Amino acid sequence: MRSSLFTLILSFLCMMALGPVIIPLLQKLKFGQTEASYGPQSHAAKQGTLTMGGIMMAVAFTVSAFAFAPANTRFGAMLHLILFTLGFTAIGFIDDYIKVCLKRNLGLRAWQKIALQLGLSFGMALYCYLNEQIGSSLIVPFVNIEWDLGLFYIPFAMFVIIAVVNSANLTDGVDGLCASVTTVTMATFLLIALFMKDAAGDHGLSDSAMVFCAAMAGACLGFLRYNANPARIFMGDVGSFLLGGAVVAAALVLRLSLLLPMAAVMYVASSLSDIIQIGSIKLRHKKVFRMAPLHHHFELGGMSETRVVAMYTAVTVLCCLLALISLGV
Amino acid sequence: MRSSLFTLILSFLCMMALGPVIIPLLQKLKFGQTEASYGPQSHAAKQGTLTMGGIMMAVAFTVSAFAFAPANTRFGAMLHLILFTLGFTAIGFIDDYIKVCLKRNLGLRAWQKIALQLGLSFGMALYCYLNEQIGSSLIVPFVNIEWDLGLFYIPFAMFVIIAVVNSANLTDGVDGLCASVTTVTMATFLLIALFMKDAAGDHGLSDSAMVFCAAMAGACLGFLRYNANPARIFMGDVGSFLLGGAVVAAALVLRLSLLLPMAAVMYVASSLSDIIQIGSIKLRHKKVFRMAPLHHHFELGGMSETRVVAMYTAVTVLCCLLALISLGV
Repeated sequence: MRSSLFTLILSFLCMMALGPVIIPLLQKLKFGQTEASYGPQSHAAKQGTLTMGGIMMAVAFTVSAFAFAPANTRFGAMLHLILFTLGFTAIGFIDDYIKVCLKRNLGLRAWQKIALQLGLSFGMALYCYLNEQIGSSLIVPFVNIEWDLGLFYIPFAMFVIIAVVNSANLTDGVDGLCASVTTVTMATFLLIALFMKDAAGDHGLSDSAMVFCAAMAGACLGFLRYNANPARIFMGDVGSFLLGGAVVAAALVLRLSLLLPMAAVMYVASSLSDIIQIGSIKLRHKKVFRMAPLHHHFELGGMSETRVVAMYTAVTVLCCLLALISLGV
Repeated sequence: MRSSLFTLILSFLCMMALGPVIIPLLQKLKFGQTEASYGPQSHAAKQGTLTMGGIMMAVAFTVSAFAFAPANTRFGAMLHLILFTLGFTAIGFIDDYIKVCLKRNLGLRAWQKIALQLGLSFGMALYCYLNEQIGSSLIVPFVNIEWDLGLFYIPFAMFVIIAVVNSANLTDGVDGLCASVTTVTMATFLLIALFMKDAAGDHGLSDSAMVFCAAMAGACLGFLRYNANPARIFMGDVGSFLLGGAVVAAALVLRLSLLLPMAAVMYVASSLSDIIQIGSIKLRHKKVFRMAPLHHHFELGGMSETRVVAMYTAVTVLCCLLALISLGV
């Protein structure tokens, strides 16, 4: 437990130290956000806010996760987890870079994005499948059984990865929202890994997962220093892909994919609201929400950004408690 | 662990249910805040916001702590803890009532307040001293020893109680601030109680403390639904005394008074900044902070209320992690 607490603190302090260095640098490079023309009216004022703050989190997270990784996993499990997460971060970075710096509004083409994501998620799914400590079985919440998917694990894991990463991307749209809910989710996975370690006497992997989760939680918490309303900097796709990648990596390693609808409940809600909205417009030519994803629906209903963040965080805390209960903690 | 998680959820749901009942009631009774004339200018807009929201928290907290209390402590340890906490809540309530409803601006007279607080804290100190599971020794952080104060425990505990409760009162001054930091502190005590229980095999008291902390954490989290910036309702003295009372009660029962400068770091910072400011004005005829307590200093320095809350919460999380580390968790 100690090393993961130190990891969290280190990661947070890295964020504090990086801010005064990286923010002026991004300013100089003119990494300002072009606010999407389809966002709520009230967001027009955000035009020109710095973006790509996810770079800071990626650095703080990588440094601290690597620093406190159990020595025997530093070039094994932990390296895989970090590389996978940074892989998604890189996709987000390229996308941001094209949009923000080259001023091409749409970023990567759809097929390029899909191809990169499929490749990366296949690699991760295969790694988990072949790792003897992870394997092809999942923990089923509430009933305390393990469900072995066999070879179907690979397409299943790929679906989960792509769904989570893109959901994290959709959840990022209000100051401090994605960082707040992800802090809670990562803290929950940290606790679960701690209990798993106690229960199973299994060391290597749970220990790595704990450090990994702590590093991400610390980076998110530190990012709020700059990203809380009114935001001085946004995380950008590079940030939301990093967060989504870390959440799904932790879930896969702990075999907790089926827990994600609880532990990352607001990711799921953001995605579902988008899918329902688009489906309804196509099929019924009517809108279900004032605007999708869900947080814009609440904002247009008159909720302030900060109240939306408070609500999303509270709901995430509750669902995470439910997730802990469902595992019989 | 399970019962405390259920307690937290119940307490939160109570808050969700109580809001639509109690808020209109307070509105009808015209419990509007008269914003203190010595606060920052920017707070003038808050004039007339509802106050005494602490009543909701007191109800949610009491119901859920009592509901999930281990059966054998329901009329023993848990009852004492709850009564002590509600005693301070009552002092806050009387103070609020005189200020808000009878429109007498200064509330209770100083000597009345001090007499009530001294009486209540003496009762609690004596209870802890005589309880064989608590006694007169304190856990010393970092060095892992116990320090037996003997009879000096009683004045020491009284000082701690009065200091913490009044510090909580000072910390309440920005939307969502006191509720946010108290959520973190109570969650930390919950975790510590869990580890103590595992370590010592001691059941009755740690179990009660866990449920007690969970009930308070859930109530604070739920209160943020109404109190996050822009606040629909303030907690009032009735709320800040409730929170302060709960924090110090948990600390005393777990023998963690010496941990409070870390676990409730922003309470301490608020108090100290006030003391330093007043001392400096008296002695040097100069101000140290733009305005005390500390959160007004940051506000006047141009930080938004939400950013102050984010910073206070992040610092509390870090210091709570340090507190966990200091106990060798």
